[in-house]
Amino acid sequence: MSSVAPDAERDEKETGRIEAFSDGVFAIAITLLVLDLKVPHSSELPPDSRLISALLKQWPTFLAYVISFATILVMWVNHHRLFNHIRRSNHTFLFLNGLLLFFVTFVPFPTALLAEYIRHPEARVAAAVYAGTYFAIAISFTLLWRYAAGRGQLLDARADLSQVEAITKQYRYGPPLYLLAFVLAFVYVPASVGMCFALAVFFAFKGSPKQIFAPQSGEDGRIKP
Amino acid sequence: MSSVAPDAERDEKETGRIEAFSDGVFAIAITLLVLDLKVPHSSELPPDSRLISALLKQWPTFLAYVISFATILVMWVNHHRLFNHIRRSNHTFLFLNGLLLFFVTFVPFPTALLAEYIRHPEARVAAAVYAGTYFAIAISFTLLWRYAAGRGQLLDARADLSQVEAITKQYRYGPPLYLLAFVLAFVYVPASVGMCFALAVFFAFKGSPKQIFAPQSGEDGRIKP
Amino acid sequence: MSSVAPDAERDEKETGRIEAFSDGVFAIAITLLVLDLKVPHSSELPPDSRLISALLKQWPTFLAYVISFATILVMWVNHHRLFNHIRRSNHTFLFLNGLLLFFVTFVPFPTALLAEYIRHPEARVAAAVYAGTYFAIAISFTLLWRYAAGRGQLLDARADLSQVEAITKQYRYGPPLYLLAFVLAFVYVPASVGMCFALAVFFAFKGSPKQIFAPQSGEDGRIKP
Amino acid sequence: MSSVAPDAERDEKETGRIEAFSDGVFAIAITLLVLDLKVPHSSELPPDSRLISALLKQWPTFLAYVISFATILVMWVNHHRLFNHIRRSNHTFLFLNGLLLFFVTFVPFPTALLAEYIRHPEARVAAAVYAGTYFAIAISFTLLWRYAAGRGQLLDARADLSQVEAITKQYRYGPPLYLLAFVLAFVYVPASVGMCFALAVFFAFKGSPKQIFAPQSGEDGRIKP
Repeated sequence: MSSVAPDAERDEKETGRIEAFSDGVFAIAITLLVLDLKVPHSSELPPDSRLISALLKQWPTFLAYVISFATILVMWVNHHRLFNHIRRSNHTFLFLNGLLLFFVTFVPFPTALLAEYIRHPEARVAAAVYAGTYFAIAISFTLLWRYAAGRGQLLDARADLSQVEAITKQYRYGPPLYLLAFVLAFVYVPASVGMCFALAVFFAFKGSPKQIFAPQSGEDGRIKP
Repeated sequence: MSSVAPDAERDEKETGRIEAFSDGVFAIAITLLVLDLKVPHSSELPPDSRLISALLKQWPTFLAYVISFATILVMWVNHHRLFNHIRRSNHTFLFLNGLLLFFVTFVPFPTALLAEYIRHPEARVAAAVYAGTYFAIAISFTLLWRYAAGRGQLLDARADLSQVEAITKQYRYGPPLYLLAFVLAFVYVPASVGMCFALAVFFAFKGSPKQIFAPQSGEDGRIKP
Repeated sequence: MSSVAPDAERDEKETGRIEAFSDGVFAIAITLLVLDLKVPHSSELPPDSRLISALLKQWPTFLAYVISFATILVMWVNHHRLFNHIRRSNHTFLFLNGLLLFFVTFVPFPTALLAEYIRHPEARVAAAVYAGTYFAIAISFTLLWRYAAGRGQLLDARADLSQVEAITKQYRYGPPLYLLAFVLAFVYVPASVGMCFALAVFFAFKGSPKQIFAPQSGEDGRIKP
Repeated sequence: MSSVAPDAERDEKETGRIEAFSDGVFAIAITLLVLDLKVPHSSELPPDSRLISALLKQWPTFLAYVISFATILVMWVNHHRLFNHIRRSNHTFLFLNGLLLFFVTFVPFPTALLAEYIRHPEARVAAAVYAGTYFAIAISFTLLWRYAAGRGQLLDARADLSQVEAITKQYRYGPPLYLLAFVLAFVYVPASVGMCFALAVFFAFKGSPKQIFAPQSGEDGRIKP
């Protein structure tokens, strides 16, 4: 890996920029989800009906909103987890990150699609597009990480190899599991949607607290002296 | 709390990142509120009617817009106030912050709901959802702060304990007072909405100028030499 | 002004945060303007009519878009110009800045209103709301600057007093001139709209290149050695 | 260029601010594109028709979305590429950057226009507006770079002149090639749209990996020791 000292500051600035742009995209995508929640028009509400039941009838929209919010949040956490170990950038890396962001900004569309069709005979197609989007995100994450770490060329020289290996191991499960969620969409929609939510939880916690945002912390989450 | 010197820079960078992402979400949520303000279509305006009265008829939308803007602004100020004292992060903290952001991004929906139903027989439900959202935000703020400060594990070693205590004391009032606003929604809607606005003012000023953004300043807001 | 050395870094970090949040709000408000541009539905376009004329008929929307974009851009430049001289923050300053951001995020609404009504008998009301919004922004800018500089308590100790005085002098013109644009709206709409645009140009250039973003540069815009 | 040491830090801070604001605008513009993707209403879907074919019928919207996302991403990469060499700012530069951002925030409109009209007899006008917007962006990029580098006054004193020259050379092609895409719109729409996509690829790769984000790296994208 040789000495990178004189360029280290510039490198860190460059990955900092990519992170700042990515953070902006994640923050906007996660906030735009709320635009899918539609207020029932007061003029369309029959005079003796209740607003509360009109809202409760929208449960698929709220469910899709919650799952998508949680998933984008977990993806943001994972994105930073990768960048904790990455210190340099190049052209290919930049566009692999762009590919990931492409699917992240796309998430509001399958979310709205799932909400619209979850109680419709065509629910399976909507669930397949939903799980398929997350499958594409899992592939993009894996490509990004494999490229950065696989040839070892973009990692921080001080990166803890056991943590790098742990991420590589965890990411091995992403694509096949999201592919399974995609296939499940054609069999039983609730199983597919439930699996997407379970995978968000998996990627939130599987990477154990130790590896996220505090690589140097001990088992109890306290910073070691 | 032991020496954290070698990790201090990395810690500060990590909380800086969480703040930057949170700032993005606050900035977008506060700016999206304007999308709820609808321009009356010129073709629907009867030729002898006045635009000014068509706009004034929309007062509930403008009122809800102003209250929500003020509340999100105050929440942003409070978020930074907390992060003035927090220097480290861990997994749980990250997701508690995510929970808070979830309800912040949700605010445009109850705002639009309240604006649509405030003059409708179902106004109480809309006001309850509105106050309930702020109740959830108060709970999230309290959880976030209690977790960071309660076990004292994420605070800056140099944090002024009297200020930490003052925040803890103030946050004790948040959940019960917003719960009261929620209950009031079923009794008298204007009281509930007015209380939400009053609480925004309370959380803006109760924490006295000393504790916000200038912990070292004196009573008169001037920086002490 | 006494020595602020030990707190200087923290102060700069605090104003940096306010700037970052404000930048986010400016960036979102300026980008949301495009949502007012509506694509004419292809199904509503008569088969023998031209798309180009359907687009040209929308000229008020494009005009309002251009003026609002230019004005928000100039306001962003001016916001930074102020923060070049401001190094500390306190509670009042924070909420005066929030007041300014409130009117900035509001801009997309009067922009859409003006575009909808500029060829309607009620155009004067729309133009008055439009100019009135900029009047409120001018007031907010003046309050923010007067508070920071007037009692001199938030300025950088190294701030060039002649520049500070120049800003104060220029800002004296903002509120009365925008008030004039507001009054003009009831007399002759094109004069009011034209004046809003002219004032954006005035605030872009009046403050001469020297004072914006490169206080140390010479007459020719070159950095002095 | 004389010594700029005492002002170097301030200069870098100033261009950093312009970059941060520009990044915000790019991030929002790229994320807003998804709002053009419309979910087909379930109530309008005939009971025996398939959701998948309803989605596939929307291919022009998805195509326009992909091309616009790719183009904005490439523009963001190029914007940073320029700022790698720029260290100072002045008034004119600031407004040239604003002109560029104006056309970037405009992109969602021609994207929606192209998607709506690509299968309509008026497709040529839509494609002309689409290519014309990118032509305007190419002109703005060239103006921005020529101003910064042409008189050499805003570049980093340490900027590698061969890289500066390479950018200048590449940017010579932008305006005439996008003008060709604009003219092609009136001849054969797919050729114009295809050329816009090809030019995004050209500007992504023509500037060879060496010059983007890792000026010091060798042919293989690895950082040189």
